[in-house]
Amino acid sequence: MTPNTNLKTFDLKDLQYYKIYGRQKSGQYPVPLFFNGSGIEVNVTGSELWIDIEVEFDTHEPWIFTRLNDSFMSRQMLMPGSQSICLFRGMSCEAVKNVKFFRELQAMSEDDTCRILVKSLRSDGFFLPVSDKKYKLEFIGDSITSGEGTYGAKEDVDWLPMYMGVSRNYALMVSDALDAEFRLFSQGGWGVLCGWDNDPRHNIPCRYEKLCGLVSGTKNDELGASEPYDFDEWKPDAIIVNLGTNDSSAFEQPPFTVPETGEVFKQRKEPDGSYNQDDLNRFKQAVINFLEMIRRHNPDSHIVWTYGMLAYNLTLAITDAMNSYRQMTGDNNVSFLQLPNTTEETVGSHAHPGELSHARAAKVLTEYLESILS
Amino acid sequence: MTPNTNLKTFDLKDLQYYKIYGRQKSGQYPVPLFFNGSGIEVNVTGSELWIDIEVEFDTHEPWIFTRLNDSFMSRQMLMPGSQSICLFRGMSCEAVKNVKFFRELQAMSEDDTCRILVKSLRSDGFFLPVSDKKYKLEFIGDSITSGEGTYGAKEDVDWLPMYMGVSRNYALMVSDALDAEFRLFSQGGWGVLCGWDNDPRHNIPCRYEKLCGLVSGTKNDELGASEPYDFDEWKPDAIIVNLGTNDSSAFEQPPFTVPETGEVFKQRKEPDGSYNQDDLNRFKQAVINFLEMIRRHNPDSHIVWTYGMLAYNLTLAITDAMNSYRQMTGDNNVSFLQLPNTTEETVGSHAHPGELSHARAAKVLTEYLESILS
Amino acid sequence: MTPNTNLKTFDLKDLQYYKIYGRQKSGQYPVPLFFNGSGIEVNVTGSELWIDIEVEFDTHEPWIFTRLNDSFMSRQMLMPGSQSICLFRGMSCEAVKNVKFFRELQAMSEDDTCRILVKSLRSDGFFLPVSDKKYKLEFIGDSITSGEGTYGAKEDVDWLPMYMGVSRNYALMVSDALDAEFRLFSQGGWGVLCGWDNDPRHNIPCRYEKLCGLVSGTKNDELGASEPYDFDEWKPDAIIVNLGTNDSSAFEQPPFTVPETGEVFKQRKEPDGSYNQDDLNRFKQAVINFLEMIRRHNPDSHIVWTYGMLAYNLTLAITDAMNSYRQMTGDNNVSFLQLPNTTEETVGSHAHPGELSHARAAKVLTEYLESILS
Amino acid sequence: MTPNTNLKTFDLKDLQYYKIYGRQKSGQYPVPLFFNGSGIEVNVTGSELWIDIEVEFDTHEPWIFTRLNDSFMSRQMLMPGSQSICLFRGMSCEAVKNVKFFRELQAMSEDDTCRILVKSLRSDGFFLPVSDKKYKLEFIGDSITSGEGTYGAKEDVDWLPMYMGVSRNYALMVSDALDAEFRLFSQGGWGVLCGWDNDPRHNIPCRYEKLCGLVSGTKNDELGASEPYDFDEWKPDAIIVNLGTNDSSAFEQPPFTVPETGEVFKQRKEPDGSYNQDDLNRFKQAVINFLEMIRRHNPDSHIVWTYGMLAYNLTLAITDAMNSYRQMTGDNNVSFLQLPNTTEETVGSHAHPGELSHARAAKVLTEYLESILS
Repeated sequence: MTPNTNLKTFDLKDLQYYKIYGRQKSGQYPVPLFFNGSGIEVNVTGSELWIDIEVEFDTHEPWIFTRLNDSFMSRQMLMPGSQSICLFRGMSCEAVKNVKFFRELQAMSEDDTCRILVKSLRSDGFFLPVSDKKYKLEFIGDSITSGEGTYGAKEDVDWLPMYMGVSRNYALMVSDALDAEFRLFSQGGWGVLCGWDNDPRHNIPCRYEKLCGLVSGTKNDELGASEPYDFDEWKPDAIIVNLGTNDSSAFEQPPFTVPETGEVFKQRKEPDGSYNQDDLNRFKQAVINFLEMIRRHNPDSHIVWTYGMLAYNLTLAITDAMNSYRQMTGDNNVSFLQLPNTTEETVGSHAHPGELSHARAAKVLTEYLESILS
Repeated sequence: MTPNTNLKTFDLKDLQYYKIYGRQKSGQYPVPLFFNGSGIEVNVTGSELWIDIEVEFDTHEPWIFTRLNDSFMSRQMLMPGSQSICLFRGMSCEAVKNVKFFRELQAMSEDDTCRILVKSLRSDGFFLPVSDKKYKLEFIGDSITSGEGTYGAKEDVDWLPMYMGVSRNYALMVSDALDAEFRLFSQGGWGVLCGWDNDPRHNIPCRYEKLCGLVSGTKNDELGASEPYDFDEWKPDAIIVNLGTNDSSAFEQPPFTVPETGEVFKQRKEPDGSYNQDDLNRFKQAVINFLEMIRRHNPDSHIVWTYGMLAYNLTLAITDAMNSYRQMTGDNNVSFLQLPNTTEETVGSHAHPGELSHARAAKVLTEYLESILS
Repeated sequence: MTPNTNLKTFDLKDLQYYKIYGRQKSGQYPVPLFFNGSGIEVNVTGSELWIDIEVEFDTHEPWIFTRLNDSFMSRQMLMPGSQSICLFRGMSCEAVKNVKFFRELQAMSEDDTCRILVKSLRSDGFFLPVSDKKYKLEFIGDSITSGEGTYGAKEDVDWLPMYMGVSRNYALMVSDALDAEFRLFSQGGWGVLCGWDNDPRHNIPCRYEKLCGLVSGTKNDELGASEPYDFDEWKPDAIIVNLGTNDSSAFEQPPFTVPETGEVFKQRKEPDGSYNQDDLNRFKQAVINFLEMIRRHNPDSHIVWTYGMLAYNLTLAITDAMNSYRQMTGDNNVSFLQLPNTTEETVGSHAHPGELSHARAAKVLTEYLESILS
Repeated sequence: MTPNTNLKTFDLKDLQYYKIYGRQKSGQYPVPLFFNGSGIEVNVTGSELWIDIEVEFDTHEPWIFTRLNDSFMSRQMLMPGSQSICLFRGMSCEAVKNVKFFRELQAMSEDDTCRILVKSLRSDGFFLPVSDKKYKLEFIGDSITSGEGTYGAKEDVDWLPMYMGVSRNYALMVSDALDAEFRLFSQGGWGVLCGWDNDPRHNIPCRYEKLCGLVSGTKNDELGASEPYDFDEWKPDAIIVNLGTNDSSAFEQPPFTVPETGEVFKQRKEPDGSYNQDDLNRFKQAVINFLEMIRRHNPDSHIVWTYGMLAYNLTLAITDAMNSYRQMTGDNNVSFLQLPNTTEETVGSHAHPGELSHARAAKVLTEYLESILS
């Protein structure tokens, strides 16, 4: 490779113009990309652009994807170590290029070492301001929002980073359609009350108030993951919750014993196949509590609870909780939207929604948000 | 026209093989086609087939459409009088043709004389048995289910028979996809509690238990329209309710004074734009009552309340009522399904769902019913 | 039916504002609709519009379809006799409605009595000028251009008027997309040299120069059908020829004996399955001759020979003829466009292109004409 | 990263089961991936798979994409040096995974050092036989077949490796649809007679008979690129030529002077805008010669010349040449297929066909080949 001797390194700390996607601690360098959809956007001239990152993980390797002028360009697995990834080469120098570099993989609660840190950029051009999007959207969810199944063949059933992503995710599709900046907070297998396997620790609300409560470990703590998230720093116009799918699954799974405490947790069904009323009630209470928590931190955001991409079972339980919440609080800026279920035709890998299912849900959600936000 | 001298007349009274669609009084001749989607199906050989009908109306002319071998063939306005309509000519004699003749226009509550009576068929072939479909579906609704807007240009805003129909209706699309026989019970502008304009008489439940409670007048009475409907005669596998859209509109409209009684009716909004709680509650009670009524007559049918094709406003009110109903009755064979809202891209005439919107809703509903019925 | 006492009859002879589609003899009343796509367009106010026509046929009944504000409204079979067809009723009086009434059925060379005559219109409104379209397009073809197969089920194999039409025809789709007025000249089974069955009389060129050379008989003669067509009266921007499909079929069929002369005609194949060179040459010569004939009468029109919707077999023969024609004449305003072949997925009845195939061809042709005409 | 200590290295030289895509010299190790669409396919068990490659280039970096179980997984730019790319990690050991690793970038005639060499694979599983596809297809073309424009935004106009690819290419789509193995031989800007800029050296035929005549330099020579290609080693069922687009462009461009010889070359237009007859004739002769060359080496393959994805200008010239070729040789196993032109809606970057245009062309071509090959 003929070396480009004009490349200069721009440390993020010193760089004036760029935009970080995803929750992060202000003033933190290098910048950790905690979440799926965390990333960096720049406008830059020059013929060449590189990004200098540091990658670490034990088991689950992170993936990233890039966009050039809002067109998908690359998607790849990252290996550990300090490294430099070329985002473009050989382009006309004068033209301003918009480049986005995104983490595909969700925050990995099961791999405390999994991390991408962005240190600097290198280019022979100069950087220009990144314009703000029209809206801000926060998406809170489970494996659906983690894009599990958007890559991989239908017969693939492993639970693997490579099948997850934001690049074919309804959250990105909706944000593109509405010209919105987005933040995602999602974890595969988790619910609003408990995880798919009745693990009561795997509920999103208990982590939502921390910067990135989904990850733990000393190193992540140092990066600010366990600090309280400053909700005032980025105020979403709408918050899209997509939870309930794993809570529904818990009714079908055996009891779970929490290793640390010995606590046994189980969402029960009655002999006639219906949900146990007490257990359904604690699910509803969890929905109510989470709505209250979200509202507390986001007084002005429209909240829409979406549900249905992997079966409609808890539709009436969720809406019942929402009705109670509205009744109790008088907060009517909260609504329910059913998203079309995934079918054989639209399914992806690991029995999760494929790209076509995400596209269909994105269309319904986009149309809904358009009517609300405009 | 070279006359076909081999045509014989087959009076329906004497004909062994044919199937009537839509509610009708057993043993009634000629056969009245009361509803949109009411019609007759035959399997017949021969080169030629005619249907002998009698048509009457004051203001709103009925339309019909025909299918040959399940392919759309014709759609036309009917004029009053006794008449014979040719359904095919010149075909190979031996082949068995499946022919369907359907009323497009809803039962017209505003035109007591509007009627189609089927008297006889004429053919040079013979008739064969009509096979049963896999499922039976009943659709209960308003103008959406009456197919208003499925014909006509987007700029057309008159309220007219020609814009209504079953031929581009989600009810037909779903039935085709599932191989189902269907019955429709719908009236444009009506709701579950009251009409779009707060007319409290325009609620579907008060007419649902009569054969065709939507029409009145002596002649219709003679045809059995006001007699109790015999629910045992045709047991639907699923009942699809699509009501609430006009109840939502009532909150936006001025009060209505019932001419006969002077009663003033109005679904009120609060100064802050929210729905008045008492009025919302009577809407919910109407939903509960209607569910009870439907269940009373259809003990084994799956009931799905669908909603959303013209805005999602009452989603939470409907689901709240459904939750109460389930709580009170323990009847879990009742579910809620949101249908995607109509957009600028999918709208038809008179600001109603166009064919594309019906197709999108039909897909979601078909997928849902497939999962329930199979 | 409550009679509308305000209806007035407007004889076409006296009516100032309307537009006739399709070749016709200027000053001829009543107006014969000779061709598929022949019709009448009006802009009219008032609540109601009727068309008074006279219909005659022996064997093959004509079909018509109507459009209101350019939206499909009705399609029906016509019975013989003087009759009045209601095109709309009950509309808001002030609004101007655009109404089109079109013959679906091709000129029937096999039924000399088959005819629709338009005599007058009746309305309670008044008529306004009909604006000109942006382009004029002439389509010359066979059963594909007669829309055979665009109605009917895939298993239907009869040759019947009801399966033909212009309402789902590529010619209409292209004209709609380009804002063009159209004239069609097509006959099922005919070719540029001979018919599908080697009948040498069934070639389009020998009829093209007459007003409607496709029909015969005294009555049609009286209507001017056999008079020379005045090509100066309507100058198409582009002429789309879609011929060759039946010429290809002739190579596969047995010899044809012309009853009047005893002449035996056969396009031969060699033992190795290739086309006999002499016979291929006379086909090519027919293409050349027809191009010359078209050009003679249409000096400025772009001519595009389209081919392929029912197999590509004669592609190279047609292009060879076109090359020779261009070589000989220096006329480069002639081009060749292949239209995508019909597949199992896009086929209609009688093994002919269905609506989906017409739509696909229309898209390619529209894009082509856009690039040529703009 | 927790190291996988069970990985074993499998040198390609010793590995029994794998399939190489693209022309290559039998017995050459490491295996050079000369062309777009050159690559390697394996069936392998185990949890992890790596590919060891060596990459080199001066200016134009190669890109690759991978498929897991025939589902797109990654696409990335390669940097120079010996390196190991992980193709999957963490999978269930027992399952057999099908993995494909493909070069995206065309053979780069403008960068003699640009090269990917595959040395070995590493896995903790074992390799199984790779089954043969149903058909073999060879695609010969220019930038369209090099997939230029299938990546990148519409406004991107640089000529760059990252915009090219086989992953969104009609050649891959057709091969997938037909279950075919493929080989590509294409070069952006080249024609059958001369390049887009009248460079007479840039004609595909002069390189077609060498293994990879598109590249030069000592290193490529050592890899066998300039050796005669052994056409007997891989016999395509069909050969798809997609050339003519740059030959058409040459008529619009200024003369080109060959630097080595001073020869000036120009395809001329007449003052009236038509093509100069002599120049058109030498283009036709080039088509004829190339058909003869292809046939000489592929006596039994069906040859289809496709054309039109970037304008139809030379349709009649190409078909004229094909007619002459057929006349001269009696070879009728040669046909012409027009592919739908690219539109504003389907265009990609650099004014080249985008993914949608490739998809449309692929559909037409797939349908055609299905009818020929079955």
